[in-house]
Amino acid sequence: MPKLSNKGNAMPASPIRKLAPYAEAAKKKGVNIFHLNIGQPDIETPEKFWEELKHMDMKVLSYAPSDGYPVYKQQFAKYYNSVGINVSSENFMITNGGSEALLFTMMSVLNEGEEIIIPEPMYANYIGFAHAGNIRVKPISTSIENGFALPEIASFEKLITDKTKAILICNPNNPTGYLYSEAELQTLRELCLKYDLFLIVDEVYREFVYEGKKHFSALNLKDVEQNVIVIDSISKRFSACGARIGAIVTRNKEMLAVALKFGQARLSPPSLGQLAGAALFDLPASYYQKVVEEYAERRNVLVEKLNAIDGVKCPNPGGAFYCVAELPVENAEDFCQWMLEHFSYKNSTVMMAPASGFYSTETSGKNQVRIAYVLNQTDLIAALECLAEGLKAYRKK
Amino acid sequence: MPKLSNKGNAMPASPIRKLAPYAEAAKKKGVNIFHLNIGQPDIETPEKFWEELKHMDMKVLSYAPSDGYPVYKQQFAKYYNSVGINVSSENFMITNGGSEALLFTMMSVLNEGEEIIIPEPMYANYIGFAHAGNIRVKPISTSIENGFALPEIASFEKLITDKTKAILICNPNNPTGYLYSEAELQTLRELCLKYDLFLIVDEVYREFVYEGKKHFSALNLKDVEQNVIVIDSISKRFSACGARIGAIVTRNKEMLAVALKFGQARLSPPSLGQLAGAALFDLPASYYQKVVEEYAERRNVLVEKLNAIDGVKCPNPGGAFYCVAELPVENAEDFCQWMLEHFSYKNSTVMMAPASGFYSTETSGKNQVRIAYVLNQTDLIAALECLAEGLKAYRKK
Repeated sequence: MPKLSNKGNAMPASPIRKLAPYAEAAKKKGVNIFHLNIGQPDIETPEKFWEELKHMDMKVLSYAPSDGYPVYKQQFAKYYNSVGINVSSENFMITNGGSEALLFTMMSVLNEGEEIIIPEPMYANYIGFAHAGNIRVKPISTSIENGFALPEIASFEKLITDKTKAILICNPNNPTGYLYSEAELQTLRELCLKYDLFLIVDEVYREFVYEGKKHFSALNLKDVEQNVIVIDSISKRFSACGARIGAIVTRNKEMLAVALKFGQARLSPPSLGQLAGAALFDLPASYYQKVVEEYAERRNVLVEKLNAIDGVKCPNPGGAFYCVAELPVENAEDFCQWMLEHFSYKNSTVMMAPASGFYSTETSGKNQVRIAYVLNQTDLIAALECLAEGLKAYRKK
Repeated sequence: MPKLSNKGNAMPASPIRKLAPYAEAAKKKGVNIFHLNIGQPDIETPEKFWEELKHMDMKVLSYAPSDGYPVYKQQFAKYYNSVGINVSSENFMITNGGSEALLFTMMSVLNEGEEIIIPEPMYANYIGFAHAGNIRVKPISTSIENGFALPEIASFEKLITDKTKAILICNPNNPTGYLYSEAELQTLRELCLKYDLFLIVDEVYREFVYEGKKHFSALNLKDVEQNVIVIDSISKRFSACGARIGAIVTRNKEMLAVALKFGQARLSPPSLGQLAGAALFDLPASYYQKVVEEYAERRNVLVEKLNAIDGVKCPNPGGAFYCVAELPVENAEDFCQWMLEHFSYKNSTVMMAPASGFYSTETSGKNQVRIAYVLNQTDLIAALECLAEGLKAYRKK
């Protein structure tokens, strides 16, 4: 047979994917698995969404415009205005989930071989999209010791070359849960202006911030309109991951025009998710409050119980629904596999994502895992008990 | 502001896009536009689809598996079996429309700088996807004189270099409507085996063949399983373009595994289109017959009336719902724009796609247009009358 492409062969596999066969095998043995490994929320998609689906008055499910339905973009903009971000529908391009927004953004602003600086650990698929576009990821290390805060400006400057084109952060962060402060955003603003860089901020977890903290959007940075590109999605906000509706949001009209050319080639983002999803932006503030309270309680349980396990260290994340924890093991990937392959407690085990997959630097994060708190509190408590027992047994091996 | 990417700036714009502002302006003047320019069918999406949407028993709209829901793939395979193609669900990867299937396929099988041979005129977005992946399109000319039939094998061999990796055809063809015969497919099979090439066949219009002709799928070529990759979609088959559900279908497991890595990076194809669409594969043969009869009648009207216009030449297409016609003008793009900008007849005008956008060779197809017969017969007749009058007026200018 003809050879497949080098790019395809070298495309990084998802960090969870390697564990999938072990999870399958455990399930077949009848072991219950607590999934702390995925970002699939268990929160119900708002009833309004299902209602809208039921009352869709269409005869032909036609293509949506390549940049999304005008009414959807208007609703999206109205929601932005309601959270204090002054944009209008013309600042949006609707995409196949946040994933496509990231891919189109990278391909629109970076030439091949150019560099994008991303704090690590980072959302693993950033590495995949960069790989697909022949873009070089330059990781900048953050440390569990200070909760994965933004590194000093000097560390960024050390990485900037004449090939550096953009800085990308996820705020609040997947996988660390770190919430970047306004001051940190201002630092990035200065850097981007000084070195003429794009500032790409993935804000899909914008609502999920805790302890009354406030999220500061990059779109509210002043006098840097042409540099700032925000990635958004309804997947997490409304627990509607399967709708595949994301967006590029920017005041840079030229950037949107270029991204739209990639969008026109793929014709249309999904129609149904937009048609049923547009009404979700009308949900009252109480909707978000309730969801955020639920996540906050889970986080409190998780972080307290994690840190109570001998040898485990976990900073208290300010947002999103993930944390990165250090485990008292040398190789967390081996431990995660062992938990699925050889361990059960009360006929259950725990699946976590080895954090090494979230590092672009090969040697980093070996003793860390990413934990998503997308389980209800009862299950979460049981999962952590199981993890504690698993660690005990693994270390005695 | 920082510079945008060269790839983005050079991304080819859709051939219809340039005319959009003129269409907008015509609409604002109150002129009715007959849209012969787009592949958006007016046929109703089957009632079954809307029914399924109404009865979706879900609480959380979660991610679908990256390669699609198993049940959806099973249904898809069952339909394939019913049209005489022996594949099973493991031969499928579900994608964001046929568009993503094409992009992932190109990126999985071609290295950058490698070459793909495509008969032209060709679906314009093939050029866009190749551009996105730095893949070189080598067009092979087909001629309106013989209805855009497959060129001689010698013409292919002239184009094959050590960088050639694949041949791509669309069968039945968009934009020409040409239906490739089994003998032509066998020719391509020989070529692909001789030169170790992938044969990629876009079969999204498989059902739409006329005069009792039979579509021959590339998946039914013998002893070439590792080379053949079929692109499919429910957009046209079920008039469900907005669902964004396509597929890669191949017996080459390694190719599917590589494509899936790109799929995992973008997480999931849309859930709703799969969940509501799975039942459509149970539609009886009579569903297809009715739709095909309707298109056949439109085609007959279109081709007869087109060829009746002085100086217009249009081969009778064997499938799909497009044709490419030669007009008695020097520059069809200028004519199409003029029709929108300066002409109306009975307060209507016609929008068509200049065929030059479907040619990768810059000088080709200048006096041709692509016409989609996605209007009911009454409108189609009125549109053709309007076109005839427009041509008269334009040539008198």
